[in-house]
Amino acid sequence: MWGRKKAELPPEVYPSVLDGIKKIYRENIRPLEEMYRFDEFNSPLLRDSDFDAKPMVLFLGQYSTGKTSFITYLMEGEYPGSHIGPEPTTDRFVAIMGGKDEMIIPGNALVVQADMPFRALSRYGNDFLNKFQASVTNAPILDDLVIVDTPGVLSGEKQRIGRSYDFTSVVEWFAQRADMIVLVFDAHKLDISDEFKRTIEVLKGQDDKIRVVLNKADGVTGQQLLRVYGALMWSLGKVLKTPEVTRVYVGSFWAQPYQNPDYAKLFDAERDDLLRDLHMLPRQSTIRKVNELVKRARLAKVHAYVIAHLRAEMPVFGKKSKQEELIKGLNTVFNAVMQRYQLSPGDFPDIVRFREKLAHMDFSTFSKLNERVIQSADDALATEIPKLVKMFPLEHQVVPSQTNP
Amino acid sequence: MWGRKKAELPPEVYPSVLDGIKKIYRENIRPLEEMYRFDEFNSPLLRDSDFDAKPMVLFLGQYSTGKTSFITYLMEGEYPGSHIGPEPTTDRFVAIMGGKDEMIIPGNALVVQADMPFRALSRYGNDFLNKFQASVTNAPILDDLVIVDTPGVLSGEKQRIGRSYDFTSVVEWFAQRADMIVLVFDAHKLDISDEFKRTIEVLKGQDDKIRVVLNKADGVTGQQLLRVYGALMWSLGKVLKTPEVTRVYVGSFWAQPYQNPDYAKLFDAERDDLLRDLHMLPRQSTIRKVNELVKRARLAKVHAYVIAHLRAEMPVFGKKSKQEELIKGLNTVFNAVMQRYQLSPGDFPDIVRFREKLAHMDFSTFSKLNERVIQSADDALATEIPKLVKMFPLEHQVVPSQTNP
Ligand SMILES: Nc1ncnc2c1ncn2[C@@H]1O[C@H](COP(=O)(O)OP(=O)(O)OP(=O)(O)O)[C@@H](O)[C@H]1O
Ligand SMILES: Nc1ncnc2c1ncn2[C@@H]1O[C@H](COP(=O)(O)OP(=O)(O)OP(=O)(O)O)[C@@H](O)[C@H]1O
Ligand SMILES: [Mg+2]
Ligand SMILES: [Mg+2]
Repeated sequence: MWGRKKAELPPEVYPSVLDGIKKIYRENIRPLEEMYRFDEFNSPLLRDSDFDAKPMVLFLGQYSTGKTSFITYLMEGEYPGSHIGPEPTTDRFVAIMGGKDEMIIPGNALVVQADMPFRALSRYGNDFLNKFQASVTNAPILDDLVIVDTPGVLSGEKQRIGRSYDFTSVVEWFAQRADMIVLVFDAHKLDISDEFKRTIEVLKGQDDKIRVVLNKADGVTGQQLLRVYGALMWSLGKVLKTPEVTRVYVGSFWAQPYQNPDYAKLFDAERDDLLRDLHMLPRQSTIRKVNELVKRARLAKVHAYVIAHLRAEMPVFGKKSKQEELIKGLNTVFNAVMQRYQLSPGDFPDIVRFREKLAHMDFSTFSKLNERVIQSADDALATEIPKLVKMFPLEHQVVPSQTNP
Repeated sequence: MWGRKKAELPPEVYPSVLDGIKKIYRENIRPLEEMYRFDEFNSPLLRDSDFDAKPMVLFLGQYSTGKTSFITYLMEGEYPGSHIGPEPTTDRFVAIMGGKDEMIIPGNALVVQADMPFRALSRYGNDFLNKFQASVTNAPILDDLVIVDTPGVLSGEKQRIGRSYDFTSVVEWFAQRADMIVLVFDAHKLDISDEFKRTIEVLKGQDDKIRVVLNKADGVTGQQLLRVYGALMWSLGKVLKTPEVTRVYVGSFWAQPYQNPDYAKLFDAERDDLLRDLHMLPRQSTIRKVNELVKRARLAKVHAYVIAHLRAEMPVFGKKSKQEELIKGLNTVFNAVMQRYQLSPGDFPDIVRFREKLAHMDFSTFSKLNERVIQSADDALATEIPKLVKMFPLEHQVVPSQTNP
């Protein structure tokens, strides 16, 4: 199923773009970051493996809506530890990842692995880690994606009693890191529980990643489907609050034939659209990585100018009081740097947080202005990265927008 | 089309219920209203013809969505002065009413006719009356309903330049009096103009009367239809703000065969539902008239007690100052009457407006308490009206709710 569509997969250009990104970061940006201690102010220095992370697809929904069935359909097989059934079955967060040998890595082991993107999850505690695992297996789709299966959202009391960790916070963490969030609804029972409404609410700001699936749509009559679908749109519009209509895919997403074949053509078309969207992810994720590299390079450059400026202001005597004066007049410093080097105000750091960081530092240990290192970052922005972008086939240079008519 | 469904029309019981309503009002309620000048405080005395008003169905929508086509489909023929076409065609409000002879009654003539329910429309001025007419014709559906066709809502500039009267206020007037409001959308062009959004907003409070039609649905593919319908629900939910989902009927509402027959079964079922809803109106309107009679009788009774109480408080000398005292302490009066006669607070008039009315009256001209006349109204409430209600077939005693799944 995934395999059959290989032709639509990103052409061989994407791996080489990825290599390009790594090389540019390593040679042109990282030296600048190191020299001006960018990691102490902003985010940690990146390693090659940070760029390798596969796009992540997060499945969310009330219990028994068919999340696990959908995933095994995409994988053309089960994943280690998967359970499908009418009762609430999936009882944990499962990161499904590609690998030669089948295995299950428990949550506690997972969050200490430096080459996995899950280290930050340790803050949700043991109660959560006991309900988190990676399932490693071999399936074509896992060459391109990491899929996260989740426990179904229960309603009311059950939810509160059942879970000993903060479910919505965990969902929020995954949602921020995900490249696509698939919300699965069941056409037979649409009542969106308050719990699930709250879950959807933490997805705010991630609206463009959300795809909604109205599953098991072949099990109801046309009129029922119309009502259920309409009610879903009616309430989603209110919960998500965006004017742009979120795309809802209507169909039955598992390997069984349709119960009611009246709308087979429609359901097939919907499924194909959704699969196309999924297939697009690796390519989009490469494009996004380029964008993020550009963003990071601009921030690091402005950061370097500011730090070098502070260093240059340091006198031989009276360092301490000068430092205090500079910290107090930080906006004057920012303005001076902005005008002198013609920088964009949007690339400057948040002044309050920056001031806090500076408070405990000795400005005289900062590096002086190094034109060569900055020039190298500038070259990346002006020449190297545009070269990378030119490698994308023309029609993919813009992130494809959603295919609403 | 309407004729074929005759079997579903209200049984012969409804005309006799209507006669009962008229008789009860004439014999038991109106004497009370006359005696205590209810019409000067509340609304005018009613005549038999006020009860005869047929349920009114108001069609609204952007231009060229197919309102007029839909109406002529229901009538199985055109109405005098009807125009159908791709450009904005219907240029006026048309009340389509049943009658032996075809004729057009222009707006100015219409609002002076005492037996027509349009008298209040004269306040919208000549510019409006020139764009208002009644089209009288002979069609089975007009035995049961009055249909109001309206000019399509235009967008932006056109709307403002084109109309010399206050379109939304006129719509509001009709909407308040209508028994059903049909909002017609075109599946080919869904952009809801700001003008139409404002029009929908004046329908607030009338939500239960609204039926939405997604017309020309046979002219787009299944997936397009899904998107258009979803987008419609998404934005309607935001404009109407009610948690209850408004029923949307999807189909093609004219006499032509379906362009794309894939969804014929669905469209047929939707059309049948909508027609059933329309057929239910006369019956529901009779039930509503009974409810309104009860409400009016209760108001008139409380009114009578209050007026008689004020009359009884009048001294022989010093009327003026006593009147002023009573008006000032009107809430004490209301409380005394409420307790003495065990009346419900909800049946008392708005104290501010009531006070204003009293200011210019001479309380000594009010009628004294007349137990017999009040008793007669009480008999109506306790015996006569319940007898009427018993005439309804059991299953119709509750207004049928919408058939959402
Ligand atoms: N497309 C479908 N049509 C009809 N039934 C389905 C479909 N997909 C799954 N089911 C059935 O629905 C039930 C729940 O499926 P599944 O366990 O995949 O749901 P889930 O969302 O993963 O539930 P949980 O949240 O409890 O893990 C199972 O009985 C399954 O056979
Ligand atoms: N169900 C339908 N399917 C396809 N086309 C239709 C349908 N109903 C009407 N039309 C066409 O749409 C156009 C507009 O129809 P009509 O005049 O009835 O719309 P209207 O809403 O009354 O417009 P206006 O607001 O200008 O009065 C006409 O060309 C008509 O033939
Ligand atoms: Mg599951
Ligand atoms: Mg028209």
